[in-house]
Amino acid sequence: MSSAACFGPALMARLDELATFSDDPERLTRHYLSPAHCRAMQQVAGWMEAAGMSARIDAVGNVIGRYEGRRPGAPAVLVGSHIDTVTDAGKFDGSLGVLAGIAAVEALHRAGERLPVAVEVIAFGDEEGVRFPSALIGSRALAGSLDPSLLDARDRAGVSVRQALRTAGCDADAFGSCARRAEDTLGYLEVHIEQGPVLEAEGLPVGVVTAINGATRWRVEVQGEAGHAGTVPMVLRRDALAAAAEMVLAVERGVRAVPDLVATVGQIEARPGSINVVPGKVSFGLDVRAPLDATRRAALAALESAFGEIAARRRVAVAIDPFHDTAAVTCDAALIETLLGALARAGVRPRRLPSGAGHDAIALAALCPVAMLFVRCKGGISHNPAEAITTEDAGLAVQVLLDALRHIGAARTVKL
Amino acid sequence: MSSAACFGPALMARLDELATFSDDPERLTRHYLSPAHCRAMQQVAGWMEAAGMSARIDAVGNVIGRYEGRRPGAPAVLVGSHIDTVTDAGKFDGSLGVLAGIAAVEALHRAGERLPVAVEVIAFGDEEGVRFPSALIGSRALAGSLDPSLLDARDRAGVSVRQALRTAGCDADAFGSCARRAEDTLGYLEVHIEQGPVLEAEGLPVGVVTAINGATRWRVEVQGEAGHAGTVPMVLRRDALAAAAEMVLAVERGVRAVPDLVATVGQIEARPGSINVVPGKVSFGLDVRAPLDATRRAALAALESAFGEIAARRRVAVAIDPFHDTAAVTCDAALIETLLGALARAGVRPRRLPSGAGHDAIALAALCPVAMLFVRCKGGISHNPAEAITTEDAGLAVQVLLDALRHIGAARTVKL
Repeated sequence: MSSAACFGPALMARLDELATFSDDPERLTRHYLSPAHCRAMQQVAGWMEAAGMSARIDAVGNVIGRYEGRRPGAPAVLVGSHIDTVTDAGKFDGSLGVLAGIAAVEALHRAGERLPVAVEVIAFGDEEGVRFPSALIGSRALAGSLDPSLLDARDRAGVSVRQALRTAGCDADAFGSCARRAEDTLGYLEVHIEQGPVLEAEGLPVGVVTAINGATRWRVEVQGEAGHAGTVPMVLRRDALAAAAEMVLAVERGVRAVPDLVATVGQIEARPGSINVVPGKVSFGLDVRAPLDATRRAALAALESAFGEIAARRRVAVAIDPFHDTAAVTCDAALIETLLGALARAGVRPRRLPSGAGHDAIALAALCPVAMLFVRCKGGISHNPAEAITTEDAGLAVQVLLDALRHIGAARTVKL
Repeated sequence: MSSAACFGPALMARLDELATFSDDPERLTRHYLSPAHCRAMQQVAGWMEAAGMSARIDAVGNVIGRYEGRRPGAPAVLVGSHIDTVTDAGKFDGSLGVLAGIAAVEALHRAGERLPVAVEVIAFGDEEGVRFPSALIGSRALAGSLDPSLLDARDRAGVSVRQALRTAGCDADAFGSCARRAEDTLGYLEVHIEQGPVLEAEGLPVGVVTAINGATRWRVEVQGEAGHAGTVPMVLRRDALAAAAEMVLAVERGVRAVPDLVATVGQIEARPGSINVVPGKVSFGLDVRAPLDATRRAALAALESAFGEIAARRRVAVAIDPFHDTAAVTCDAALIETLLGALARAGVRPRRLPSGAGHDAIALAALCPVAMLFVRCKGGISHNPAEAITTEDAGLAVQVLLDALRHIGAARTVKL
């Protein structure tokens, strides 16, 4: 644990420093291509160079630092995350992965150590998708999957991605140059705060992500019959809210028994919405996620059937609008094993867990094998100034990442 | 049924005519002391005089027609309802009871028939409580229970009840003169549309009200813990909406088995209210009504206990704010029997039912015995232009009312 102990304080200090790059003096807000983001790009590029990398900013605002391997131009392991933030953000979401990558390369550089492979650290520009109606612009450009029409998407002030890139000094029309070739990329590793409570609940500092959950969202409408709360006897009611309440509980019951499956009803509205009127119509939003698409699909089918049964029994109508659906991304088995091996060498119980939130790794999976290391965060809180990790855990993340990079390099040597 | 057949068409024609008194040319809206209400007062007074009554408008805008008995100044049976309406109202709520009363007296007058008792028909001015933050101003003034401070209550335009009364030509400060003496009032009969679906469901034209439900309203707040819909495993959640859903079903289950008890959750809000966030806080409104206070209290105690059990099991907090509570009003046993006798003589199966909605009879109960006759209405719909009754049912209501007045008079003769 001695290397972890030495990595931690420096990393935490740098995270504090990066958090001072904000467009709002009162809180941390650093949207894609904002003035603070542009200044942060320069700062990160400077840290990359200080860590022995050559640094550049690509056509969509990603900062890319390259630490050559023993043979210049060798295929690279990519390490990264994003440096844009939500509004009133915490200091760790995204930034941790970028700065942990720089810290790991810095350790190689200080030791004068070259791996058989190159390492590239990438600070993606847009993961959160707060400013423009899109997310993962930076990582999609790198993976070659960016839809060019996205460059015309506009923020609330009417500024397009293209214009914002020009203001930031990037050549938007060269976005195709961002795309990497598969044969040059051995894999992608991302360190990220968990943004959930699992590691904390189990007393573990870090865990290895098995998959990034696929997600489906439904808008569900239940149509019953409104009526006077005083005059309509219970047996004559077709209460849309009572039906919806049964559906909410069916959601909970339906997913509880399946590991790693989660489902949430986060929004509900009853109409007409008077305290003395039996609700005639209720709409609610459902969010279902799982690391395996088959698991999610089976759960959705079961819920559709349960909703139908509840509606029929209560003489109400139910309509489902499945307005959002994204497939799960499975992490690479070999990279998972590499990370688990590094955990074992660090003396940490090897915990595998799915990621419920989205990450740059989703886009990178179209380019190369991906894997993620989750770091325990306090109370599972993120997207909030209360986001917190410990110095020890931060240091351990760098140690594990560095160990993994060395092992990937060694494995590559064997293959070559 | 011949007298019912002859009362019906005339009453329906008059209901249509009264419905033309509106402050909105497009729909029926006649709030307390509005220009349309003032014109309607004059029209109703005219109809009362045509029916052989002396008519006057009291200090709070009630129109009172008196049809003397055999001996002038005899105690009176009061018959009434209200002529104010909600916004975009139906034609029958309130108006039916007033015009049915006038029609019954008109039948006596045309036959040259005097009862041993006087009959007073009253068109109350404010039952709906739409304009001012209060209801039953007219009937409370008559019962002597009007809080004088209510005269200072203001509508949304800043006009006080006092000012509105002055504009209508009433002397607000003489409101004390509205109060009747108990010894002068033998009872109060109100004909009203059911505003519920029970009579229609049972194929009955009319029914006798046993009690006007007491009502309790709770604002319930459930405090759980908000969390990321993708990252917080089901077992670690404290989902406020799932807990509230169980409570909604507990409400339904808890009252279903008890006759005449009704409970409704008509409003619900989940916060933060994002589709991808586990709800941390939910508030909902509960309305519980029953014809017996003991029934309602027992149900509330059971619900409080059920909510507590659900909250404890789910590790959430629940807070109940009982912000509204009104006692039930029991109808007079003798008057109920009189109405049931009239039903039997009209060949109608005697159905007793509670009133789930409030009525002027609530205020009158402080002054004298009260009873109500409910008339079947289409689909149980009211407070809506779709409000509808049949001509036959309207005629039957007048026939039953007239029969009841004659029987009360006869009973009074025996007592004297």
